[in-house]
Amino acid sequence: MAKRIGGRTVRLDKGIGVVGYGSVVGQKEGSGPLGNLFDEVVDDSKPLDGSWEKSESALQSAALTRALGRAGLNADGVDMIFAGDLLNQCIGSTFGLRSYGIPFAGLFGACSTMALSMMMAAISVESGAAQKAAAVTSSHFCTAERQFRTPLEYGGQRTPTAQWTTTAAGAVVLGVGGRVSVSDICMGKIVDLGQSDANNMGAAMAPAACDTIVSYMRDTGTSPDDYDAVFTGDLGSVGSELLLELVTAEGYTLDSKHLDCGKMIFDIERQDVHAGGSGCGCAASVLCAHILPMLESGRYKNVLFCPTGALMSTTSGQQGESVPGIAHLLHLVSG
Amino acid sequence: MAKRIGGRTVRLDKGIGVVGYGSVVGQKEGSGPLGNLFDEVVDDSKPLDGSWEKSESALQSAALTRALGRAGLNADGVDMIFAGDLLNQCIGSTFGLRSYGIPFAGLFGACSTMALSMMMAAISVESGAAQKAAAVTSSHFCTAERQFRTPLEYGGQRTPTAQWTTTAAGAVVLGVGGRVSVSDICMGKIVDLGQSDANNMGAAMAPAACDTIVSYMRDTGTSPDDYDAVFTGDLGSVGSELLLELVTAEGYTLDSKHLDCGKMIFDIERQDVHAGGSGCGCAASVLCAHILPMLESGRYKNVLFCPTGALMSTTSGQQGESVPGIAHLLHLVSG
Repeated sequence: MAKRIGGRTVRLDKGIGVVGYGSVVGQKEGSGPLGNLFDEVVDDSKPLDGSWEKSESALQSAALTRALGRAGLNADGVDMIFAGDLLNQCIGSTFGLRSYGIPFAGLFGACSTMALSMMMAAISVESGAAQKAAAVTSSHFCTAERQFRTPLEYGGQRTPTAQWTTTAAGAVVLGVGGRVSVSDICMGKIVDLGQSDANNMGAAMAPAACDTIVSYMRDTGTSPDDYDAVFTGDLGSVGSELLLELVTAEGYTLDSKHLDCGKMIFDIERQDVHAGGSGCGCAASVLCAHILPMLESGRYKNVLFCPTGALMSTTSGQQGESVPGIAHLLHLVSG
Repeated sequence: MAKRIGGRTVRLDKGIGVVGYGSVVGQKEGSGPLGNLFDEVVDDSKPLDGSWEKSESALQSAALTRALGRAGLNADGVDMIFAGDLLNQCIGSTFGLRSYGIPFAGLFGACSTMALSMMMAAISVESGAAQKAAAVTSSHFCTAERQFRTPLEYGGQRTPTAQWTTTAAGAVVLGVGGRVSVSDICMGKIVDLGQSDANNMGAAMAPAACDTIVSYMRDTGTSPDDYDAVFTGDLGSVGSELLLELVTAEGYTLDSKHLDCGKMIFDIERQDVHAGGSGCGCAASVLCAHILPMLESGRYKNVLFCPTGALMSTTSGQQGESVPGIAHLLHLVSG
C-alpha cells in the first residue's frame, strides 16, 4: 500500500520501477547536445502522408515500440497505457496508439504529461489494477505551431521569451522491479499568478514548479542537497531563472541542482531556439535518453523529475484568461 | 489489493464507494424527463461574462460544490481530482477547478470521461495514494457546437443521426465506505471500425461499447441478466440500436437491460434532439441524478455504467481519419 506523507506526497511501497523506455526525436533535436543519446532520430522534413499530426502519432508509436522492446514485452503484456499530447482532443495519442489494443487512458497535462502519465501508471501497478502499465507522450513543432500560434508558412517573428516545441516522444513501461524505482509521487495543483503572455510559457509555469517542488521537500523533510539533480520539463531560460528566485524565497537553494530539459535538449544559442525547448515530448525524451540511463548506470543515485504544463488553449487566451500552470513530480531512485 | 480477473477486468478490494455526488444542468435538460432529479438547473440563456466556456467551467464548479456538500467535505478533504471535458486542452476543467487547490489530474476520454475519471479516482483510493478522490466532467451545447461544428449564429441544419450536446456536469467523490460501491472496473481499448461521419457519433462509439461490455461479461462469467441495468453514456437512438445488434452477435442478449443516458436525458421527439443527448456531462449528470440515487435507495442492486467516447478532433476529421471510439466500464453495487 502506498502511504501519504505530509499534505501531498505519496510514497509507493511495492518496488515499482522502469522496466522499459524509449525515445524518438526529430532532426533538430538529433542535432542538439543530447543527439546521440536518443534511440531514434527520424527524418521529419516532410509530413507523413501529408499530415504533421500523423507524423506526431508515428513518434508516439515508435517510442512505445522501443520501450516494449527494451522491456521484452509485446503490447498484450501491458495492462494499461496512459498517454496524452498537446493536440486538440489528444489525437496524437489516440491515432498513435490505436493499433496496439492496450486499454487506454487519455490524459491532458500539457507539457507535464510525462510525469502525470507515469504517476497514473505507477498508482495502477501499486493498486494491483495493472501488472505492467505504460506512459507515453509526444509533441511536434509543426502541429503545435499551427494549432497554438500561426500557420508554418506565415513565418511569424518569435519573441525572445518564446520556446521551441520539440519534435519528440518518450515512452516508459512500469512494473514491479527494474533498475530505476519510482519512490514517491507528488501530484500538482493548478497554480495561476495571472501571467497571460502566451509567448512566455516559462513564466506561467515556474510558480507551479516551485509549488510542487517545495511542497514535496516540506512533505519529506528533504532539501535539494539530498538529490543529484532536480529536473524541470521545459521552463526554458526565462522560467528557470524565475523558478530559482521563487524557490529561494521559500527558503531553499536549488541553484546548482536544477536542470531543465528544455535547456538541455537544444544548444540555445547555436540552434536559435530563443528561451529553449518545450512540448510534452521534451521532458519525455530527455527522461528516456538521459535521466533514466544515468540512473540505470548508477551515475545518478536519485533525482526529482518535475515537468510543468501550461493549461491554456487559444480560446482561453483570446478571452483574456491568464495561463494556469501545473507541475507533477516523481522521485526516481537508482537500484 | 485489486485483483485482475480475465483479460481486462479489475476487482477492487477495499470497499471503495461514492461518498458524495452532484449534478447541474441547463434549461433544456431541466425540461427533460429527468428534470426534477438534478441538483440544480441553471439559467443558461446567456454566456457567463460573455463566454460560454466560462459557463461550462461554472457548471463543473457547481457540480463539485454539490458533491463536496453531500460528502460533508471541504476541498482540502479531497486528495486528488480527476477531470476532463470536450474543449480543446480541457479548459472547462482547468478553469472550473482552478480555485479549489486540489491536486489535479486532467483526463481526455471524450464522452467516456466520467467513467475514466471515476476509474482513476477508485484506483488511487485502492492504492492508498488518496483517501478521498473526486471525479468531475462537463459539456456545454454552446461550447461544443462552435468548436466541433458550426458557429451558433450560423444555424446549420442537423442530420437525423446527429446528437444534441448536453449542457451538464456531474461530480463524484470516492472514498472507503459509502452506500454505493465501485466493485469492478474495465478500462476500454480504442476501437475503430472505420466510421468517419462526424454527425453520427453513436455509430462510431457502439463497437467500443460492445467490446468493453462483452469483455467484462466474459472476464466475470456474467450475463446481462445479472444486472438491473447496463447504462451506456450517449450512444443515442442510432448507436443504441447498433450496440444491441453487435452484442447479440457476440452471444449475449442485452435488449431489455440496456439504457442509454443520451436517450434518457431528453424527450427525443418533443425536444427535437434528433438521435438524443451527448457530451461528457450527459452520462455524468444522469449518473448523479438517477443512477446513484437509485442505487443508494436499493431500487437498483447492481448496474454497469459504461459511457463511450469518440476520440476525434476537427483536424483528424478534416484529414479524412475515421472516428475511434472507447468505452470504460464500472460495476456499481448498492450497499
